[in-house]
Amino acid sequence: MADNKLVESVKALEKGAMKLSLASDEARSSALLAIAGAIDRNRTLIHEENEKDIEAAGKSGIAKALLHRLEFTDEKIDSAIKGLEELSRLPDPIGKIKEKRELDPGFVLEKVTFPIGVIAMIFEARPDALVQIAGLAIKSGNAVVLKGGKEATLTNRALVSIIKEAALPIVQTDWILGIESHEDVDAILSLDKYIDLVIPRGSNAFVRYVMDHTRIPVIGHADGICSVYIDSDADLEKALAICIDSKVQYPAACNAAETFLVHSAVCEAFLPRLSSAFASLGVKVHADERAIRYFPSAEAAAEDDFRTEYLSLECAVKVVDSEEEAIEHIQEHGSHHTDAIVTENEEHKMEFFSSVDSADVFCNCSTRFADGFRFGLGAEVGISTSKIHARGPVGLDGLMTTKWLLSGNGETVAEYSGKNGRSFHHKELI
Amino acid sequence: MADNKLVESVKALEKGAMKLSLASDEARSSALLAIAGAIDRNRTLIHEENEKDIEAAGKSGIAKALLHRLEFTDEKIDSAIKGLEELSRLPDPIGKIKEKRELDPGFVLEKVTFPIGVIAMIFEARPDALVQIAGLAIKSGNAVVLKGGKEATLTNRALVSIIKEAALPIVQTDWILGIESHEDVDAILSLDKYIDLVIPRGSNAFVRYVMDHTRIPVIGHADGICSVYIDSDADLEKALAICIDSKVQYPAACNAAETFLVHSAVCEAFLPRLSSAFASLGVKVHADERAIRYFPSAEAAAEDDFRTEYLSLECAVKVVDSEEEAIEHIQEHGSHHTDAIVTENEEHKMEFFSSVDSADVFCNCSTRFADGFRFGLGAEVGISTSKIHARGPVGLDGLMTTKWLLSGNGETVAEYSGKNGRSFHHKELI
Repeated sequence: MADNKLVESVKALEKGAMKLSLASDEARSSALLAIAGAIDRNRTLIHEENEKDIEAAGKSGIAKALLHRLEFTDEKIDSAIKGLEELSRLPDPIGKIKEKRELDPGFVLEKVTFPIGVIAMIFEARPDALVQIAGLAIKSGNAVVLKGGKEATLTNRALVSIIKEAALPIVQTDWILGIESHEDVDAILSLDKYIDLVIPRGSNAFVRYVMDHTRIPVIGHADGICSVYIDSDADLEKALAICIDSKVQYPAACNAAETFLVHSAVCEAFLPRLSSAFASLGVKVHADERAIRYFPSAEAAAEDDFRTEYLSLECAVKVVDSEEEAIEHIQEHGSHHTDAIVTENEEHKMEFFSSVDSADVFCNCSTRFADGFRFGLGAEVGISTSKIHARGPVGLDGLMTTKWLLSGNGETVAEYSGKNGRSFHHKELI
Repeated sequence: MADNKLVESVKALEKGAMKLSLASDEARSSALLAIAGAIDRNRTLIHEENEKDIEAAGKSGIAKALLHRLEFTDEKIDSAIKGLEELSRLPDPIGKIKEKRELDPGFVLEKVTFPIGVIAMIFEARPDALVQIAGLAIKSGNAVVLKGGKEATLTNRALVSIIKEAALPIVQTDWILGIESHEDVDAILSLDKYIDLVIPRGSNAFVRYVMDHTRIPVIGHADGICSVYIDSDADLEKALAICIDSKVQYPAACNAAETFLVHSAVCEAFLPRLSSAFASLGVKVHADERAIRYFPSAEAAAEDDFRTEYLSLECAVKVVDSEEEAIEHIQEHGSHHTDAIVTENEEHKMEFFSSVDSADVFCNCSTRFADGFRFGLGAEVGISTSKIHARGPVGLDGLMTTKWLLSGNGETVAEYSGKNGRSFHHKELI
C-alpha cells in the first residue's frame, strides 16, 4: 500500500494535470524551452551527480552496455536539449477535432482530444529518457510520475528538480513527481484511483510484472519476438538485406527479428547465402531439421527456440512449405509485435497483411522500422502490443483521450421522441 | 477458474475471430440478413421460450419494469430485425485507413482498422439486446461471448442457437458462445489470455464487480451521476426545458441528470419555476440550505445526496456562487459521464468545455442526448467513462483496433543510419 505522503503527492498531480490541460500550447511549449535552458545551465551539477551514479554502478559491477546508457555525456545532453526544442515545435496535441457532426441545424457535436490525466512512466537507467518523457508529458498536458532505473538515482533526482523548477514559473502547478524505490513502484501501481495509465519499459520480466500487478491500464510490450518470412516469390537480394538488417543492425532492440521462416521453394537458392552472411557477421543459428544442413555450425532448434527473444546475435531458422504455414507459425510463436514478409507477389502480401495479427505487419522491409520516429510520429512513448487504446509505436496521440462536446440551443430529447418527433439529420462537418 | 470445456470453447472463438476478420463485408452483411430471416421464421419457437421465461420470472416476483424488458413481443422482434438490416447497410468498419504516410518515395505506411478479436458482453435481461450485440459482433468481425440476464435464459438459448445456425453456412466458423451461469461469468473474467475486451452493462454494483474482477480491459461505466449547471447568463426558458428533459424524459437512463446546480444570480428568477415544474411532475427534491426555501416539500440535502444516482424521479439541487464552484462540484461529486451547462455566454461555455473532465460535456441541451444513436454512431455498444480506448457513447469503432502496415522495396534501417544515411521525408498521404 502507498503511504500517505505519496498518496497526497499523487493527488496533487491529479489537480496539476487539470491545470496543465488548461495551459495554452504556447505556455507548454515555452516551458519546454525553459527546461532545455535550465538543463544547459546546470551541466556541471548534472555531470557531478552522474559521476557519482557511474562510480557506484562501476563498483557494483554492472555490464558495460548498461554503464554506457547511464552516462549522461555532453553529447547526450545536447541531444536531449535538441529533443525538447523539437518537441516544442510539434503541433498542439490538445483540442484536435477528430469528428464533427451536425445532429440537426445548429446542433453540433465534436469529438476533441484531451490529455489523459496522470501517467506513470517506469523506464531503464537512461537519464536522457527522463528528459524525453518529462517533455512528452508537458507537451501533451499530462502530469507524470517518473521512475528511472535505480543506477541513475542521483542523476534523475537532479534532473527532476531542475525540470520542476524551470517549468514552475510558467505552468504554476505540480505536474512531475520522481519516485526512487521499488516499494514506491508497488505503491504507484496500487493507486488506480489517481493514475490513469502506466507505461513500463525495460526487461520482459519487469514489464510483465507491472502488467500483472496493477488495475491501471498499461501500454507496452513484454516480448518482441519478431519474424521475417521469405516467401516463394521473394526477391532474394532484398530478402538477404532485410534478414541481415532485421537481425544485425541493432540486435538488442525489441523490433529486431528473432525468427526467419523460409519457403521450401527458395531454400536451396537462399539459405546458403543467408548462412554465409550470418557466419561472417557472427550470428549464431538454431535451425530446424530441414534448414540445418545449410548452416554448418548451427544447433538443432528446439520448440522453445522459436519462442525466445534472443536480443543478441542469435536466431532461429525454419523451412515452411506454404505461406499459410508461416502465418500459423507466427500466430502461435510470435508476440504480435512486428512481423515481415518478403515477396514480389501482391496476393501473398495482402494475405499476410490480413492474416498476421500483429501491431506492425511489413512487406519488403526490415522489422527494425517499427519505431515512432521512423513512422513519423514525432516522438515515441513506447511500442504497444495491446489491442486496446494504442497499438504499435505510440506517439503523443497515445497520451490523449477524447471528450464529446455538444453545443445546442435548448434542445430536449422529448422533441426528438415519439411518432411526430423531430429526426436527426447527422450531417458530417469534417 | 474456468473448466476445460469452457476454455476450449473460448479458444475456438479465438480462431473463429481470425476467420471472421478475413470474411468480406459482403459475407458479414449477408450473414446479418440470414440471421434476420431466421429470427423472423422462428417467431413461434422464440415466443414459446420467452413465455416460459416470463412465467418463471412472474412467479419469482420480479419488478414490472423488468418483466416488460424481458418480454420479446412481435413488435420488439420486428424492431430487432430492422436493426440487423440497418446494421448490414452500415459501412464496413474493417480496413478503414486512419493514417497514410510515405516515409520515403515508394515506402508507404498505413494505419488500418482491424477487429479486436474476442469480446465478452454481459447485459441485462433483454432478448433484443442479445440480437443487437450479436449483430454488432458479426458486422465488426469480432467473435463474442454473450451472457444475458438470467431471467431470459431460455429465450437467449433459443436465440443463440438460431443465430449460430443461420450464420454458419456463410461465415463457416465458431464466432458466438452463449453462457448462462454466474460461475461461467467468473470463469470468463479469468480468461484474459483469450478474451480481449469485456463490455458489461447492468447495475452499478455489477459493472463495478466486473471491473474489479478481471485483468481484461473493460469498456463501460458504473455510475451515471450527471449534472446540469444553470449559469448566471442562462436563458431561463431553455434552462427549464433542459432541466425537465434531463430529469423526467427517462429517469432510469444513465444519462438522466441527478444534480442541478444553479448560479445565485438567477436562483430568485429560476428556482420558483423549477420548483413548480418539478412539483407538478412528481420529482422529489433534495435541496441544499440556500435552495430549500424554493422547494416547499424538499428534504434538506446531505453530502451523499450529491453522490447518488437516483435513476428515478428524484434529484439534488444546489445554489453556487460561480461557474468555478459549479465545475469544482462536478469534478468532486460527478462520475465523469455527462454534464451540461446552460448559458448564453460563449466564454463561460468554453470554460466549462475545457474544465469539466467528463466523457460528454454539453451546452444548452439535455444530458439525455448522450447516446450512440443520437450522436450518429449508427449503433451503440455502450457508454464508456474510461479514458483509455473509447470514451462516451461507443459505436462500432470501439470494437476495432488498428494495425500498422508498411510496404517497402527492400529498405533497411542501416541505409537510414549514420552521418551519410538517407533521411525520411514523412509525406502525409491523407
